[in-house]
Amino acid sequence: MTYPFLGRLRVIESSAFIAAPLAGLTLAQYGADVIRIDMIGGGIDYARMPRMPHPEGRGRSLYWTALNKGKRSVAIDLRKPEGRELIQALVTAPGPDAGLLLTNIGTPWLSHESLAQKRADVISCTIQGNGDGSTAVDYTVNCATGYPVITGGGSSAAPVNHVLPAWDIACAYQAAFAVLAAVDHRRRTGQGAELKLALSDMAFTMLSHLGVLAESELLHQERPSIGNHLYGAFGRDFATADGQRIMVAAISAGQWKSLVNCCGISDSIAQVQRELQLDFADEAQRFEGRDAIAALVEPWFAQRNAQEAEAALEAHKVCWGRYSTVQELLAQDARVSTDNPVFERIDTPGIGQHIAAGAAVRAPAMERAPTSAAALLGTHTDEVLEQVLGLSPEAVGRLHDAGIVAGPERDPSAAA
Amino acid sequence: MTYPFLGRLRVIESSAFIAAPLAGLTLAQYGADVIRIDMIGGGIDYARMPRMPHPEGRGRSLYWTALNKGKRSVAIDLRKPEGRELIQALVTAPGPDAGLLLTNIGTPWLSHESLAQKRADVISCTIQGNGDGSTAVDYTVNCATGYPVITGGGSSAAPVNHVLPAWDIACAYQAAFAVLAAVDHRRRTGQGAELKLALSDMAFTMLSHLGVLAESELLHQERPSIGNHLYGAFGRDFATADGQRIMVAAISAGQWKSLVNCCGISDSIAQVQRELQLDFADEAQRFEGRDAIAALVEPWFAQRNAQEAEAALEAHKVCWGRYSTVQELLAQDARVSTDNPVFERIDTPGIGQHIAAGAAVRAPAMERAPTSAAALLGTHTDEVLEQVLGLSPEAVGRLHDAGIVAGPERDPSAAA
Repeated sequence: MTYPFLGRLRVIESSAFIAAPLAGLTLAQYGADVIRIDMIGGGIDYARMPRMPHPEGRGRSLYWTALNKGKRSVAIDLRKPEGRELIQALVTAPGPDAGLLLTNIGTPWLSHESLAQKRADVISCTIQGNGDGSTAVDYTVNCATGYPVITGGGSSAAPVNHVLPAWDIACAYQAAFAVLAAVDHRRRTGQGAELKLALSDMAFTMLSHLGVLAESELLHQERPSIGNHLYGAFGRDFATADGQRIMVAAISAGQWKSLVNCCGISDSIAQVQRELQLDFADEAQRFEGRDAIAALVEPWFAQRNAQEAEAALEAHKVCWGRYSTVQELLAQDARVSTDNPVFERIDTPGIGQHIAAGAAVRAPAMERAPTSAAALLGTHTDEVLEQVLGLSPEAVGRLHDAGIVAGPERDPSAAA
Repeated sequence: MTYPFLGRLRVIESSAFIAAPLAGLTLAQYGADVIRIDMIGGGIDYARMPRMPHPEGRGRSLYWTALNKGKRSVAIDLRKPEGRELIQALVTAPGPDAGLLLTNIGTPWLSHESLAQKRADVISCTIQGNGDGSTAVDYTVNCATGYPVITGGGSSAAPVNHVLPAWDIACAYQAAFAVLAAVDHRRRTGQGAELKLALSDMAFTMLSHLGVLAESELLHQERPSIGNHLYGAFGRDFATADGQRIMVAAISAGQWKSLVNCCGISDSIAQVQRELQLDFADEAQRFEGRDAIAALVEPWFAQRNAQEAEAALEAHKVCWGRYSTVQELLAQDARVSTDNPVFERIDTPGIGQHIAAGAAVRAPAMERAPTSAAALLGTHTDEVLEQVLGLSPEAVGRLHDAGIVAGPERDPSAAA
């Protein structure tokens, strides 16, 4: 679903991969008119896996179409000076809700300086790899954060990369936030803003915000590598009799009491506390005694199948979750279905009907519009050039003839 | 550094743990006046590990102080009706830039309905575990996403939890974004907004936005468990002669050419392409041939120490990064130092001087103010009650005498 919070805001997105497109998607799902510009035929991320099967290998990317829901698509030849001028004109078109660029393409003709010459109060947000403009991607930033060497009980010799592109995601949402902050500032002061957000700055500032840098500097210690235990309290995964795995977390005092009661281990917990001279009412001492606690919890799970265990966990209000694959999640979990109002079914050209998410936020009193599927590339080229730049159909026709813009690509799923 | 984008916005934060406090931190670092309310003596997250050493175990939390930089701190007894009324009054105080609540505490006296009775255009943003109000934390949501069973070459029998609280982080930034979107909407329409953002919705909607749900539904396949390889192109970690590990990514055509040239393996790559009948110009075919490619890259790294390898990678503009621990990162990487303008040194009461991050964004033309350290609990109690609620010093004194509010806690590092 899309909410009309940002009803009049127009954002030009010239982007690729995850961070900038996800920022644009977020703005779109809260109501902005996000116009994504791509190279004719598609940019560098247009064929990213996974793709739909196709006899000639031209199946649409499920990745690209997922990140570009709810946007208008314009196809322009970015190598031609006239194409670049069109994009500059789209970004700097007049109007209090226009004049916004979201990009991860660090090119001189989209620099803030060049845009500000055409529109002084332009807001540009450029996502970079590193702050000096050098290249970095989620994987080459994540490796430096210290997380891979403590993931999965790992070590410096066998670091474990994350699979979720967590830094791209954080970067996307902070970029979308920064754009709105600059819009609020412009509404009050009339001033534009140049915003640059580097993926590596995103990751390393987060190490500060989570206390990891201060811990390292002041306590001279590394965060321990503790496998699936959670840090600083008690929580771990356990295997059930039927081979399922369940995560439990006992961070708060209430969650801890619930777990002990559910597993019926209060006597043995009391004994362990005496033996180890620890007080598990303190979360830090639960962490210290985590192996002893886990040893008491393990048999309870091992003696039950998942269904039985989950019913008991639920009855005792334990904080728990079942591990699943995505196929299992889709098949079994009502939170990932159209029973959940944040999901709906959409029909993506070239792909077909499938479940898709709107904005994650629930805003009960706001109107909601359906999420629109990712358009075929260039679907809105003519419409946008006419509406935003005021070009005549004849002028747009000339741009087509010169190969500077392109209309909708052919639906790859259509009959030959 | 703090930017004055949101100079006049006042946000009342009643929160705990990561998502809501990080959302508040984000708003504060872009200039909002964020007032965090805590229980007298500290809430449920006030002593989270890691903590500073302290003879009586009362060292300040490096976690709490990291997430609560740049905010004002007010201490109120949340159990007393008069304390709850004060918080409601703070949230619903008049003014176009006030009337904002950020919370993850789902309590009836902070419900949107009860606040809207006092101020019709109030904006409340409540972060939840699940959309039905039931409890969930990052770990008990992440286990369901499918990521742990494919992390680190894992399997359903041995899932690997992430260490970075990625869903909390995403939730934080989306919540901060949603608040600004609702503020923009209120400025234009005069309407308030009730916003609810569930951690599980955050995670599962992301599975849609990354194409993972569509892949599962339409292609009936699980994302493969591929260890440290990156999905959909070529990238993996490699060990150097001196036992360092380096991540390389060859996602774009340019990155791929750079890697092949740097390692001097173009002839053997050509041969492998012929043998496997693959064309590595296509990223998907690089992914298919990833093991054969890695086998050619491995010896290049194994024959060089890290310094030599990195110089060559840099000269060839390969996209790469070195794995490090946090101690190594702080000692060696200039991106995590005050040479980087997003970092500065701050002095946190009860903790001392340490490196800390401001907003990750760089806004060259904006004024910047230093990041202020997390205050001792209750430092701003009197100031806020007098400024925001207009209470007299005598009235505030009576609240102290009745134990309803508290002033600054004692600095635990001060001499006894």
